[in-house]
Amino acid sequence: MTDQPIGAVEAGGTKFVLAVADAAGRIIDRTRIDTRTPDVTFPEMAAFFAAHGPLAGIGIASFGPIDINPASPAYGTFTTTPKPGWSGARFHDALAHLGAPLLIETDVNGAALGEWLSGAGQGCETLAYTTIGTGIGAGVLHRGAARGGISHLEAGHIRPVRDPVRDPFAGRCPYHGDCLEGLASGPAIIDRWGAPLDEAARTDPDAIPLIASYLADLAVSLVLLHMPDRLIFGGGVMKTPGLLESLRHQTELRLAGYVSHPRLDPGLATYIAAPALGDDAGITGAIALGQQASRQRGD
Amino acid sequence: MTDQPIGAVEAGGTKFVLAVADAAGRIIDRTRIDTRTPDVTFPEMAAFFAAHGPLAGIGIASFGPIDINPASPAYGTFTTTPKPGWSGARFHDALAHLGAPLLIETDVNGAALGEWLSGAGQGCETLAYTTIGTGIGAGVLHRGAARGGISHLEAGHIRPVRDPVRDPFAGRCPYHGDCLEGLASGPAIIDRWGAPLDEAARTDPDAIPLIASYLADLAVSLVLLHMPDRLIFGGGVMKTPGLLESLRHQTELRLAGYVSHPRLDPGLATYIAAPALGDDAGITGAIALGQQASRQRGD
Repeated sequence: MTDQPIGAVEAGGTKFVLAVADAAGRIIDRTRIDTRTPDVTFPEMAAFFAAHGPLAGIGIASFGPIDINPASPAYGTFTTTPKPGWSGARFHDALAHLGAPLLIETDVNGAALGEWLSGAGQGCETLAYTTIGTGIGAGVLHRGAARGGISHLEAGHIRPVRDPVRDPFAGRCPYHGDCLEGLASGPAIIDRWGAPLDEAARTDPDAIPLIASYLADLAVSLVLLHMPDRLIFGGGVMKTPGLLESLRHQTELRLAGYVSHPRLDPGLATYIAAPALGDDAGITGAIALGQQASRQRGD
Repeated sequence: MTDQPIGAVEAGGTKFVLAVADAAGRIIDRTRIDTRTPDVTFPEMAAFFAAHGPLAGIGIASFGPIDINPASPAYGTFTTTPKPGWSGARFHDALAHLGAPLLIETDVNGAALGEWLSGAGQGCETLAYTTIGTGIGAGVLHRGAARGGISHLEAGHIRPVRDPVRDPFAGRCPYHGDCLEGLASGPAIIDRWGAPLDEAARTDPDAIPLIASYLADLAVSLVLLHMPDRLIFGGGVMKTPGLLESLRHQTELRLAGYVSHPRLDPGLATYIAAPALGDDAGITGAIALGQQASRQRGD
């Protein structure tokens, strides 16, 4: 066991949150930098860590798509992201000179880990964490390990039921049009109503029920295909007053009592939860990944 | 290592397939009995095994819903099935007097295991096996272990996109109406067309594309929420000529190139496969479960 500190990165599409924590995970220093291109943002990130001396491990919870398979030669490399400059960028290239082992997960897997360790997911054997913001993504942990396969999950691109009379907006996903992310992400809400959801709800009484209906289709699929103990829904869009309640209601209607388990309480009031760590879920998970990286090195 | 034989059960809604295999898994004897009520079928099953002397372990791949959590006091008990007489029936009550350890999985998890060990799923780290028959279900294995949570998966009840002009049939699921099983199972096909799918296709040119469209919604959800190396689609309905091809085509259109991986070959010709073991996938998996049960006892 070293007493060297732990590094942590929550890499988002608009900002990077950086933190250094002691071996027990308590934050010593943190900052945030804007996400520009890797040739600018990566050196800023590395300089923050270098100022803290040798690190025992660095944990990263990152936007994607990104290779998170530790056995892959491309581990830590962004793949086909449309974000200019980021395809092919690799965390190891930016951080290897620090000599600390790295562990990398997706942003949602990292946030799920944070909530599982010290937030709304404590005690869950199977936990689904979904974020609704600039994009939509979900991470599913089973006994603390992220479920995935040939890639991390891409739950934001499932196909919800859209009634074109109720919702003539055709969706904005460049791949799928009216997939979930194309219909219910923050940018889709702005495209449809010219305003965030809380403002839209003032003039369109169906705004919140409509977005909740799409999210409920994802919630139902997560239940039926993963059977989690709990679903956490976070991200900027979920801060809209009334959205979580509408999501619970419509998910319960769709499940129609088919999944009978004490975890699915009346109204799904505890089964579908807000994040307990708020915006700190991601960096909390990244610190835990950094601790794991340190232990894997055998310190 | 004992040289006692292994027992295996593939328990379906219309028949039980029973087998006894040697320790290496080669079938010594097999039979099938009709599925009636547990007070009739369970003793018939037990008598078949008792005639083969002491068994080292018994593996069971069963219809559900059934408790498949080995840590649960209700392990091996049917839960809320509408099948008369079966709710509360428990395999252990019927087989405990034989003294062999039991391992129990769902029918689809058992079939997935069979295909993974010696069929179309060999070499897959993550494998999804779906059956389309009297019901619709999917099992997902990761490194040979079935994914689940508070229950086994219930993929048959996801909500596909139904266009009521194209398909006025409202669905027959007693819980959800037009969920996947309500729209695309064998009984739903009979309800809609008065005939099996191959016959329906002779008079309705949209019959196969319509059913394939619903199955493609499941295939896409399985890909995005589990990222399998391969999807196997089996069961009676899948034997309809042209259905597998239409499913591949529509799944590829829906994914729209978003998941880029060598496993997803052009036309998904190898990515979505028929079972290689045909109707023997389930009993093959059950024998493997019986072998596991034997090893867990420490023989």
